[in-house]
Amino acid sequence: MRLDRAPSLSAAPALVPGLSLQTRYSQVRAASEAISAALSDEDCQLQSMPDASPIKWHLAHTSWFFETFVLVPNLPGYACFDPAFAVLFNSYYVGVGDRHPRPERGMLSRPSRSEIIAYRHHVDAATAQLIAADASACRELIELGLHHEQQHQELMRMDILHAFSRNPTAPACDPAWQAPPRVAPDRRWHTVAAGLYRIGHDNPEQAGEGFAFDNETPAHRIWLEDYRIADRLVNAGAYQDFIADGGYSRPELWLSDGWATAISEGWNAPLYWQRGDGAWTIFSPAGPRPIDPDEAVMHVSYYEADAFARWAGARLPTEAEWEVAAPRFAQGFGVGWQWTHSAYNAYPGFRPATGAVGEYNGKFMINQLVLRGSSWATPPGHARATYRNFFPPAARWMMSAIRLADQA
Amino acid sequence: MRLDRAPSLSAAPALVPGLSLQTRYSQVRAASEAISAALSDEDCQLQSMPDASPIKWHLAHTSWFFETFVLVPNLPGYACFDPAFAVLFNSYYVGVGDRHPRPERGMLSRPSRSEIIAYRHHVDAATAQLIAADASACRELIELGLHHEQQHQELMRMDILHAFSRNPTAPACDPAWQAPPRVAPDRRWHTVAAGLYRIGHDNPEQAGEGFAFDNETPAHRIWLEDYRIADRLVNAGAYQDFIADGGYSRPELWLSDGWATAISEGWNAPLYWQRGDGAWTIFSPAGPRPIDPDEAVMHVSYYEADAFARWAGARLPTEAEWEVAAPRFAQGFGVGWQWTHSAYNAYPGFRPATGAVGEYNGKFMINQLVLRGSSWATPPGHARATYRNFFPPAARWMMSAIRLADQA
Amino acid sequence: MRLDRAPSLSAAPALVPGLSLQTRYSQVRAASEAISAALSDEDCQLQSMPDASPIKWHLAHTSWFFETFVLVPNLPGYACFDPAFAVLFNSYYVGVGDRHPRPERGMLSRPSRSEIIAYRHHVDAATAQLIAADASACRELIELGLHHEQQHQELMRMDILHAFSRNPTAPACDPAWQAPPRVAPDRRWHTVAAGLYRIGHDNPEQAGEGFAFDNETPAHRIWLEDYRIADRLVNAGAYQDFIADGGYSRPELWLSDGWATAISEGWNAPLYWQRGDGAWTIFSPAGPRPIDPDEAVMHVSYYEADAFARWAGARLPTEAEWEVAAPRFAQGFGVGWQWTHSAYNAYPGFRPATGAVGEYNGKFMINQLVLRGSSWATPPGHARATYRNFFPPAARWMMSAIRLADQA
Amino acid sequence: MRLDRAPSLSAAPALVPGLSLQTRYSQVRAASEAISAALSDEDCQLQSMPDASPIKWHLAHTSWFFETFVLVPNLPGYACFDPAFAVLFNSYYVGVGDRHPRPERGMLSRPSRSEIIAYRHHVDAATAQLIAADASACRELIELGLHHEQQHQELMRMDILHAFSRNPTAPACDPAWQAPPRVAPDRRWHTVAAGLYRIGHDNPEQAGEGFAFDNETPAHRIWLEDYRIADRLVNAGAYQDFIADGGYSRPELWLSDGWATAISEGWNAPLYWQRGDGAWTIFSPAGPRPIDPDEAVMHVSYYEADAFARWAGARLPTEAEWEVAAPRFAQGFGVGWQWTHSAYNAYPGFRPATGAVGEYNGKFMINQLVLRGSSWATPPGHARATYRNFFPPAARWMMSAIRLADQA
Repeated sequence: MRLDRAPSLSAAPALVPGLSLQTRYSQVRAASEAISAALSDEDCQLQSMPDASPIKWHLAHTSWFFETFVLVPNLPGYACFDPAFAVLFNSYYVGVGDRHPRPERGMLSRPSRSEIIAYRHHVDAATAQLIAADASACRELIELGLHHEQQHQELMRMDILHAFSRNPTAPACDPAWQAPPRVAPDRRWHTVAAGLYRIGHDNPEQAGEGFAFDNETPAHRIWLEDYRIADRLVNAGAYQDFIADGGYSRPELWLSDGWATAISEGWNAPLYWQRGDGAWTIFSPAGPRPIDPDEAVMHVSYYEADAFARWAGARLPTEAEWEVAAPRFAQGFGVGWQWTHSAYNAYPGFRPATGAVGEYNGKFMINQLVLRGSSWATPPGHARATYRNFFPPAARWMMSAIRLADQA
Repeated sequence: MRLDRAPSLSAAPALVPGLSLQTRYSQVRAASEAISAALSDEDCQLQSMPDASPIKWHLAHTSWFFETFVLVPNLPGYACFDPAFAVLFNSYYVGVGDRHPRPERGMLSRPSRSEIIAYRHHVDAATAQLIAADASACRELIELGLHHEQQHQELMRMDILHAFSRNPTAPACDPAWQAPPRVAPDRRWHTVAAGLYRIGHDNPEQAGEGFAFDNETPAHRIWLEDYRIADRLVNAGAYQDFIADGGYSRPELWLSDGWATAISEGWNAPLYWQRGDGAWTIFSPAGPRPIDPDEAVMHVSYYEADAFARWAGARLPTEAEWEVAAPRFAQGFGVGWQWTHSAYNAYPGFRPATGAVGEYNGKFMINQLVLRGSSWATPPGHARATYRNFFPPAARWMMSAIRLADQA
Repeated sequence: MRLDRAPSLSAAPALVPGLSLQTRYSQVRAASEAISAALSDEDCQLQSMPDASPIKWHLAHTSWFFETFVLVPNLPGYACFDPAFAVLFNSYYVGVGDRHPRPERGMLSRPSRSEIIAYRHHVDAATAQLIAADASACRELIELGLHHEQQHQELMRMDILHAFSRNPTAPACDPAWQAPPRVAPDRRWHTVAAGLYRIGHDNPEQAGEGFAFDNETPAHRIWLEDYRIADRLVNAGAYQDFIADGGYSRPELWLSDGWATAISEGWNAPLYWQRGDGAWTIFSPAGPRPIDPDEAVMHVSYYEADAFARWAGARLPTEAEWEVAAPRFAQGFGVGWQWTHSAYNAYPGFRPATGAVGEYNGKFMINQLVLRGSSWATPPGHARATYRNFFPPAARWMMSAIRLADQA
Repeated sequence: MRLDRAPSLSAAPALVPGLSLQTRYSQVRAASEAISAALSDEDCQLQSMPDASPIKWHLAHTSWFFETFVLVPNLPGYACFDPAFAVLFNSYYVGVGDRHPRPERGMLSRPSRSEIIAYRHHVDAATAQLIAADASACRELIELGLHHEQQHQELMRMDILHAFSRNPTAPACDPAWQAPPRVAPDRRWHTVAAGLYRIGHDNPEQAGEGFAFDNETPAHRIWLEDYRIADRLVNAGAYQDFIADGGYSRPELWLSDGWATAISEGWNAPLYWQRGDGAWTIFSPAGPRPIDPDEAVMHVSYYEADAFARWAGARLPTEAEWEVAAPRFAQGFGVGWQWTHSAYNAYPGFRPATGAVGEYNGKFMINQLVLRGSSWATPPGHARATYRNFFPPAARWMMSAIRLADQA
């Protein structure tokens, strides 16, 4: 597994195992602030839909995570920055207490962004103190907090792009943004023979294994039949052919729920695509730009990915099929998350972590599909072969792409 | 696999392989009319929610299925009973043409129930003519039509019960109905060793294999880790303990979507359960009756089944775990459908049938969970070990029950 | 005030003052059953929207009204037909007790229509007994019950037409129905001089005054400026000119809420109008038929009537302007109810009746507009110059027509 | 008519007729910016519901009004600040072109607040140039623009209070805010004799009449019966008695739509009221504070005002009754807008202004009730006896109060 390119917005290098915990902590925390550096206070206030959050909320919530799960239980004498934040910036941990309702996050003009930055620095200082005292004691929780923060860094990029897309003046949230690498059109099928394979992550507490979320564990055997899987992503040109061939007006290509969604939402192209005078443009972090037929198609729902695959005479891979083959491909990571055919569910023998942190993943194992790989917006060092991202089938505001598979 | 009891409402015996196609056809068709025999025209008009259909609509749609897929293409000179029915009674086959909107089915006071019965007999006569001419030619399509009709027989029982539950006078839709057998409380765990197992149904066209829907195919290998599975269903007494222990007020027991649904729908017990003066009653086909602690709990959503399992320190089985072990248990069939942990999805190598009949199953493979077994309302001869029933996780109006499993 | 024609559906003659109370009671009650005579049990079960009720519910509710307000308080020893009906058939009288939710009325397949007819006859027998004992004692309440039942007779005609309009086979609910008289196109303006006028009804308890609902009282003075008012209704031809002139696509003609409603509901013609091959048809009680340009336009919302008037360079009359002038015109009554510009509100000095009957009118005096006159569906003898009908501005399923007015 | 107190937020003195147009223009425009002076950029971004707008939107829209209706048609060579603003800041004038959807106003982080302030100053400079060239030419449109801006000043105070009320930390949007004068509890009835009265405003173009909106014209005669009207507003203590007497749980006190709204919205007190430990607090511009029984009750819907009046054995006044009597009372103005019993409708002979400005009032004359007087948030010089404010019956976020009336 490797990441082929660094996202443009963040200066943070990958989490190099050799770095000290403090150094890594500082780098990840700085990356969050870097993402928001070019945004105004007004930009950071926007919440464009209940699924998205204001940038300032992300900045606060990631700090709340360290305060709640690392500092309060472990740093004697730690003084909370503001007791009200315990409720305001709790996302969904019912084991910890009340939560401000998610759709209301955009109503919090107070605390101001600058107070939230002060909150971050307060938490950073205390964490530094804790690490200095005994780095090994809370290493695991701090690692969890850092990976959590990296997830929010990608969410920040998704959310601000969505918010800006609602502005008729089409502003750029990251004018220097560069599109990810192009997808050469000459797709090749990679064939995998039937057999018993091993997927998932070993217990992350074992030495030398590196970090993994609980939903990637335990590693386990799975039987796969013969299959083939494309060595690269579907590109925009192929997707335009799908559109031109009536892809959005032929119900026989769609799942029943997908067709109903496409009709009710008025879908006729991926999110952020617009057709003007015959040419397609996409709304990107750098603003609207022409679509390159060789770029990977992104911002498609599972329903669209599935319909495209059916139109192409193929199907989407299962997450196991992906994990066995795709990490070795040139574009397995770093461009777009790849929809799989697999419902997000517990691995055999899965046990969530004890305590409120156990709510991190397990309680979302319903009504979602797994996406694999990573995207241009994923922080360096965050992706891995066993990583399980997940979204509901109608979601489109993440950087979701399509990789085809089929029976061999 | 065996069915332990005959449902009370239907006089139809099981589909015995030795019977002639015409005899089996006549038996199944008669069973549908038998289910509705005790209902008034007004009862047969009710549609209590978009997911349910009027009894008269079921009677017409199952005839439309034969007319559309069997008679029109295969019986030369066949005259449609009424051309308008092609739209009125098409359920969801877009390949066949327009459809009357599902939530509007209850608005069709015309055609009358007696016209629909005449329609049935018109179709029956033409099918008899076709079978007499060449029984083997359309055998597969007629078999599909009969299994389709049997599915609707269970839906009729579900839908009329739901409709009657909305009537404050609590009428009985089947006064002679008898509750399914009780569940002895001394549950035993059955352990299965890890290994490669074979599930699913062989190609139904092969001789001697009997009927299966396309979604049960192809048979394929699957690796299972060690697990254990309960030899009987969860009974109402255990579920009452769950309620008494705060099961409906402890979010940590629930999936996140499940908790949100329980709150928004005001759930505090299974559907049709009511507590009065300390005692629980259930609304049954025979009207309200006291709940027996030893009866199987039914009419629970996936969310409730999952929360109960978590409360009980266990989990739900996957559909493969179920298929490998449960068909041999005394209560594998005939009481209640058993929620599995498995999202409803295509088996490896699944190919839907060609033509509009291919819409039968494949396009619903999203946002649903598989249930296995069968219920008291399933017609005799309709269930089998490989059968895959499916419903969205919030549905409760079917006869859904709970079987527990866990790692061994 | 006079009624120019008898509605086609009802054989009941007008309420002639000289008739005995018992005779009038019998005539009105029989008229309700006559309306439903040609309908099947399935037809009588339909509820096509929350604002409408099943025919059988109307038949029951009007009996409930006599049972609750006349028989129970006044007939010693009266035995209620079925205690459950007290809740099932209470429309909106909170002072009387619980009510079955309005949108659920269509779910009551039980009691059956025949039980409801038996209920009617039970009530009729008891009322006859009461009248025979002392006709004068309950005369006022019985009169109220009869006028209430006549209102429901018009609602029955509205509701069954609406229900049948949802059936793609376009059945006729009253095959013998005859359209009301045509509107000659040569409209003339009738001018009224400014002055102090008297409108409303004198206390209905006074001898010789005849019946009136409480909302028509007290009679009172009102100042009117010079105005003119059309002597006939707007016909379909004029309304077609409005459509052809872009009436449904020019927001400047519409009230803001009206425009929003027209857009969200997709209105482009009156309810029940359809354009096919250039010709307009209307769905009528006798089924679909061509629109005659000289028939009165009906089934328009207030928003459409108001937009039409603005397009025509006029306005709608106030209810006082209507009452002062329109009762003397040939088509003041018996064709279609005429939207006025007046919000439905209490007259100066209005006091609702005491007790639950006081809920009859007063609590609806918000968010509605007054319509004056009567329609082809209004029972003979029910209309009068002071009558105040009322509906929300978006309602269209009643027989609502347009009369223009303007400053003189 | 007089204004008894100056609102705390604005330094602007009343519009004194003797001042020059330029001076008045400058004062009004400065007052808008003064209201927002203490608010952060993030505060100014909030839109808490579709009916409310962000503060920065108000600042821009009021400038758009001058640009669109005054500068573009009348100042030769005027260069629009930004052509995109024509759509972004058009509120509802379809005659002028497209509009950004109202519920999306809170999504406009760009243009920034500082750009909007620059836009204001650009418009101010051009208007000064126009006034200097020929003050009389556009006097009427400029006057309209100034009164329009004053309306938005009150909306700004309503909207920011509503937005801040959604923040659990309960911030103060105007810490220096002072409550309006108390209402002495010894209410007296003022009796008015029946007769023909004159209400409304003479043509505003006539010399010496002062400004009025078109909806106040023409002045006209109206007949009133004997009535009495309270000389002061209902205070919080009386309203607390209503609550204590079950006001929110007795449907017989409520209009039917009002009761349905109260149930669905969970109302049990006026907006911004909260009960804690037996004592009531209200969320005010200065933050939460105890309720003084002698303060006027405010933030009640029409439904609540109407229910309170019924409970008190009285009713609300009509707008004519109010206009004839209330302007002379000590608290006719400057505390809270007073709900009347009158639907908002056109006066006899009303003609909207020609052109797009004609959309200002007329198209909203449906589904709203008239409120009279003014509130603490109304800018000095903006109120008058003939002024007609209007809101839907369920609205509560404006400063709405209750004055009782009754038949004499």
